Amino acid sequence: MRPSGRNLDEMRAVSIDVGVTKHAEGSCLIKVGDTHVLCTASIEDRPPPFLKGTGLGWVTAEYGMLPRSTGSRMRREATAGKQGGRTVEIQRLIGRSLRAGVDRVALGERQITVDCDVLQADGGTRCASITGGWVALRLAVNKLMKAGDVLSDPLAEPVSAVSCGIYAGQPVLDLDYPEDSEAGVDGNFVMTGDRLIEVQMSAEGATFSRKEMEQLMALAEQGTAELTAAQKAAVA
Amino acid sequence: MRPSGRNLDEMRAVSIDVGVTKHAEGSCLIKVGDTHVLCTASIEDRPPPFLKGTGLGWVTAEYGMLPRSTGSRMRREATAGKQGGRTVEIQRLIGRSLRAGVDRVALGERQITVDCDVLQADGGTRCASITGGWVALRLAVNKLMKAGDVLSDPLAEPVSAVSCGIYAGQPVLDLDYPEDSEAGVDGNFVMTGDRLIEVQMSAEGATFSRKEMEQLMALAEQGTAELTAAQKAAVA
Amino acid sequence: MRPSGRNLDEMRAVSIDVGVTKHAEGSCLIKVGDTHVLCTASIEDRPPPFLKGTGLGWVTAEYGMLPRSTGSRMRREATAGKQGGRTVEIQRLIGRSLRAGVDRVALGERQITVDCDVLQADGGTRCASITGGWVALRLAVNKLMKAGDVLSDPLAEPVSAVSCGIYAGQPVLDLDYPEDSEAGVDGNFVMTGDRLIEVQMSAEGATFSRKEMEQLMALAEQGTAELTAAQKAAVA
Amino acid sequence: MRPSGRNLDEMRAVSIDVGVTKHAEGSCLIKVGDTHVLCTASIEDRPPPFLKGTGLGWVTAEYGMLPRSTGSRMRREATAGKQGGRTVEIQRLIGRSLRAGVDRVALGERQITVDCDVLQADGGTRCASITGGWVALRLAVNKLMKAGDVLSDPLAEPVSAVSCGIYAGQPVLDLDYPEDSEAGVDGNFVMTGDRLIEVQMSAEGATFSRKEMEQLMALAEQGTAELTAAQKAAVA
Amino acid sequence: MRPSGRNLDEMRAVSIDVGVTKHAEGSCLIKVGDTHVLCTASIEDRPPPFLKGTGLGWVTAEYGMLPRSTGSRMRREATAGKQGGRTVEIQRLIGRSLRAGVDRVALGERQITVDCDVLQADGGTRCASITGGWVALRLAVNKLMKAGDVLSDPLAEPVSAVSCGIYAGQPVLDLDYPEDSEAGVDGNFVMTGDRLIEVQMSAEGATFSRKEMEQLMALAEQGTAELTAAQKAAVA
Amino acid sequence: MRPSGRNLDEMRAVSIDVGVTKHAEGSCLIKVGDTHVLCTASIEDRPPPFLKGTGLGWVTAEYGMLPRSTGSRMRREATAGKQGGRTVEIQRLIGRSLRAGVDRVALGERQITVDCDVLQADGGTRCASITGGWVALRLAVNKLMKAGDVLSDPLAEPVSAVSCGIYAGQPVLDLDYPEDSEAGVDGNFVMTGDRLIEVQMSAEGATFSRKEMEQLMALAEQGTAELTAAQKAAVA
Repeated sequence: MRPSGRNLDEMRAVSIDVGVTKHAEGSCLIKVGDTHVLCTASIEDRPPPFLKGTGLGWVTAEYGMLPRSTGSRMRREATAGKQGGRTVEIQRLIGRSLRAGVDRVALGERQITVDCDVLQADGGTRCASITGGWVALRLAVNKLMKAGDVLSDPLAEPVSAVSCGIYAGQPVLDLDYPEDSEAGVDGNFVMTGDRLIEVQMSAEGATFSRKEMEQLMALAEQGTAELTAAQKAAVA
Repeated sequence: MRPSGRNLDEMRAVSIDVGVTKHAEGSCLIKVGDTHVLCTASIEDRPPPFLKGTGLGWVTAEYGMLPRSTGSRMRREATAGKQGGRTVEIQRLIGRSLRAGVDRVALGERQITVDCDVLQADGGTRCASITGGWVALRLAVNKLMKAGDVLSDPLAEPVSAVSCGIYAGQPVLDLDYPEDSEAGVDGNFVMTGDRLIEVQMSAEGATFSRKEMEQLMALAEQGTAELTAAQKAAVA
Repeated sequence: MRPSGRNLDEMRAVSIDVGVTKHAEGSCLIKVGDTHVLCTASIEDRPPPFLKGTGLGWVTAEYGMLPRSTGSRMRREATAGKQGGRTVEIQRLIGRSLRAGVDRVALGERQITVDCDVLQADGGTRCASITGGWVALRLAVNKLMKAGDVLSDPLAEPVSAVSCGIYAGQPVLDLDYPEDSEAGVDGNFVMTGDRLIEVQMSAEGATFSRKEMEQLMALAEQGTAELTAAQKAAVA
Repeated sequence: MRPSGRNLDEMRAVSIDVGVTKHAEGSCLIKVGDTHVLCTASIEDRPPPFLKGTGLGWVTAEYGMLPRSTGSRMRREATAGKQGGRTVEIQRLIGRSLRAGVDRVALGERQITVDCDVLQADGGTRCASITGGWVALRLAVNKLMKAGDVLSDPLAEPVSAVSCGIYAGQPVLDLDYPEDSEAGVDGNFVMTGDRLIEVQMSAEGATFSRKEMEQLMALAEQGTAELTAAQKAAVA
Repeated sequence: MRPSGRNLDEMRAVSIDVGVTKHAEGSCLIKVGDTHVLCTASIEDRPPPFLKGTGLGWVTAEYGMLPRSTGSRMRREATAGKQGGRTVEIQRLIGRSLRAGVDRVALGERQITVDCDVLQADGGTRCASITGGWVALRLAVNKLMKAGDVLSDPLAEPVSAVSCGIYAGQPVLDLDYPEDSEAGVDGNFVMTGDRLIEVQMSAEGATFSRKEMEQLMALAEQGTAELTAAQKAAVA
Repeated sequence: MRPSGRNLDEMRAVSIDVGVTKHAEGSCLIKVGDTHVLCTASIEDRPPPFLKGTGLGWVTAEYGMLPRSTGSRMRREATAGKQGGRTVEIQRLIGRSLRAGVDRVALGERQITVDCDVLQADGGTRCASITGGWVALRLAVNKLMKAGDVLSDPLAEPVSAVSCGIYAGQPVLDLDYPEDSEAGVDGNFVMTGDRLIEVQMSAEGATFSRKEMEQLMALAEQGTAELTAAQKAAVA
């Protein structure tokens, strides 16, 4: 029934290659099916101005899509002169999600910027960015710990994210682009272990019941469990 | 226990005054406690370009805060040269929420722009904007129907929204600013009747369980029911 | 002869409600007929950089119109990405006018920003902004004096403003929108007591004589006297 | 008493050289003392969109200062990314002033853009721009009439402008920069023949009486009469 | 003598992988040593407006660097709100270079946009972009020809580019970043077969002789011959 | 054969008037045929931030065209909100070229900004800007030396620039606009004495041989020798 032939609760194939750029303190290329995102984590020794003297660190994120990561070429945001509303929304979500899994006292007064750049898009880019972004962040933090700059580990369980939605009347896990563009209801779920960090369910031109909400929630728990395993394997 | 002395499941006082500006096709001033939002609905006879010839109408929203609607003066976005990320996120949410309650075929090829301008802020401005925005939209649509420009009513049940969160370890309904700035977890719930339109729960530097999610959900159902009654009374 | 039925030298009804927002140090809602402007004064303890160390204070102003304050919806300036030429011109005028009535030594090294936001427009918004802006400023200064932060009163007589023009061949006082859009010549007059602060007379596609200039000037003196009385009553 | 040694009612030396660029339909270099402005008039065969089909023409103006036209180098507005408030105010004034002297029906559906670029500044650049701008406009219109594209002359008497102010307690004509930066009150007067087009009197941190206003007005009449003679000689 | 241990006339290893994204009509990932650039070619059926009705096609290019493609993180241009001067210069060069190798009549009224996004930078990114950009363009044109949309091949010999410079007093081929940042003189040479398309030699804080210019030119001929071979192998 | 009737190796008439503005530390108006550029050099006592404490000075340049310097009016860049790609490219070239002729240690920790504003354009504006810009720079440096602020002369031989191209199949010196718009190949050559600073040859939709490159190079050497003589005469 799904365009890809997957089962309702079947994720796409996930791969995470680490250490893909020579400059970044942490990096990975995450592939969730045909969605490919290059994630890098860059450490700066200074925190943002509003945290000066607080002892707290900061993690922030930026998101971008290459102009031809999509089916038809999009205008480059640098040419347009600003980031679009969707981009801003997504990078705020990534930053919030990653910060929820960080002990900012343990991190100390520094900033880590996670850049998530979509090389190829096929639905679920924000979720792949969170999942891959955490891996890049983990690797950068490992470097800080190895160098003795950070003593107590500021990260605990991986943070990962997956989208679910009602497609053709059925709750399905990990929407790809053909599903995403048809689904009346879809949600993004960010989790760490069995705890929730962010739930965003939204109906464009439709509505949904509490029962449907719970069905999607259950699929999401299953999906993030798989992603967590992939993250752990990647950083091992 | 709450700074305002309210019960955990107690909304702030809600008032909705309609017809508050002489120019707009629909308007109201909604007050949810000390949060005051002026909502206007403006009809344009042409749909946006991407809907030309489809027979479908469009509803969109814009959001703004007066510079001194807040405790300390904020920079005016027109001076800054762009809308901030938070503003963009909020106005996209308002637009999506209102559209979910509109039969766009019945509306026909026209556009209604709902402007939500915060005169005074005390938490929950986006929810008040959705609730008041629907009232302004309803009044504008009434005008179209009375004039015979729209024959079948494109609106059904009111769309309303409320925020809930975990404050001092307890789930509470309708966060005001002092609560909102302390809450580790908060959510915005948009409903129409007993159906959900949008759920956004988010933990800044924290996490939450499925059980907590459901407690907040239950409070939200109670809150939006009260708001719906106020909306119906206002447009009667 | 006037669309509103007023006499040639008759002002519209003026009301000034003070203390209309809970956050601002001074605020009022001024209504001059159907022109409604929300004015707030915000105190900052630091002067602008160019006054650091001079012992002088600063008063500045910003002006905005809500998108649907007008007959047809205007584009929001925050969306357009900049303030239009008219807005810039008006807020510079408001700032200059208010400063002319301030003893900047007595004010001391601090800045007061007066925001004038038009909720509903029917001509004469810049004049209403100056008149209401002074009231907000007066209330904010009262607060500083009561707290002992300012010892000698930096404000003297109220600053107020009114527009006059040649409408249908006759000099008239306090143009409303239907008159303003027809008048070939119109002027804005800012006064304090019997002294002038700013005179701007301009002819779009027309010219005027020195005699007409003096007729308008005389009407303006009468109008600002009425406004001054209303300002004094409001802050009493 | 004046820094330049001029009498109170003495203009600076004025020269207007016409035909100074080979491309523009009309052009002049106006020098009012050490203030030098290059004015060009460019004809476009199409009116601006809002006049399409009305039979009316349009005259508009743009103003700029070369970065080192002033005592210390100013930032280039093209680098800053926008025109400053002062620039916008001035070019709106120039456009309004020139249009007041144009019969837009006689001009027909076309647009003339007058560019006023300050090569060297020593006070009074906006007035010199209006005076020189009219000369460039006159020459461009002559070209249209010679070519038979315009049959009835859309221009009548020259439009010219001069500044006056209260300097060291005395009303003086044609302020140069050292006077302008000291004067508490100054005004710009735009005239055509003995009729007024625009009067802008403004007091930065001061006030003025009606009597002073009239003294400045009288000086302005004398100054614009001299300028009108220079304009007529230049275009003869 | 070179930091990399290469001979003076030795290129870095070059690899070109084609078909690396599923959406673009043509694509490759070119690696010149540690400089990695993702090049895509996107076909639009319409030419840019200025070519409408001329029968001519257009090829244009855009260039970007991922924020952490470099040793320290650069600000994202979409966040900065505009493309920097260096970016603009480079993308204009890429576009001009590729167009020089295109028969625009044979291409017909369509536009091909070549996007060159630097994933990892180690000097020579503009040259790698031209070389890889041509490969992406070739593949996109092949697609048009296979589909019968273009009948006569608009491309002839490959267009490729290499940088040379005077490093430590010696002319060297294919500068990497450590060399580039030290070289007083460097040049970029774009060739097709034995013909030149663009030569840009520039001395930052130094000068060079005609003899040195010819030495660099000779190295460039050798380098582009190697690149041409790699391009031909990649598209075979 | 050339539209102007000049010989293939004949420059246009060159004149350089110095001291043309009263404010700038150095200035000239350079005319190369009908191309007229006003060049000013402005001294700032502080270097740009990145040179603080290095003992090195900086020379930078900005370039602009008046809107009607060209055959049809161009949009003002300050109105467009940014400098176009061509402007950015040109001003970077001017800055680089002038810096190559400066001993930045001798200049000391200060910045000189050279503004090149085109009053009238007829081809070759960037070359005229470099040639005239050097004269303005020379005069500003003379002032510093005369005041004893700079002890050892940071400038040596003049820096000058000329364009050459293949026009109607023939190599020609100093392209004017009608030639420039037809030439398939053109180059800009910046020299100081017999040394090269910058060579930019480019073929829009064409290619060229090494032999043609050398023919243009030889013409350029002849042209810059003439310009150098004019520069020396001007500053004598």
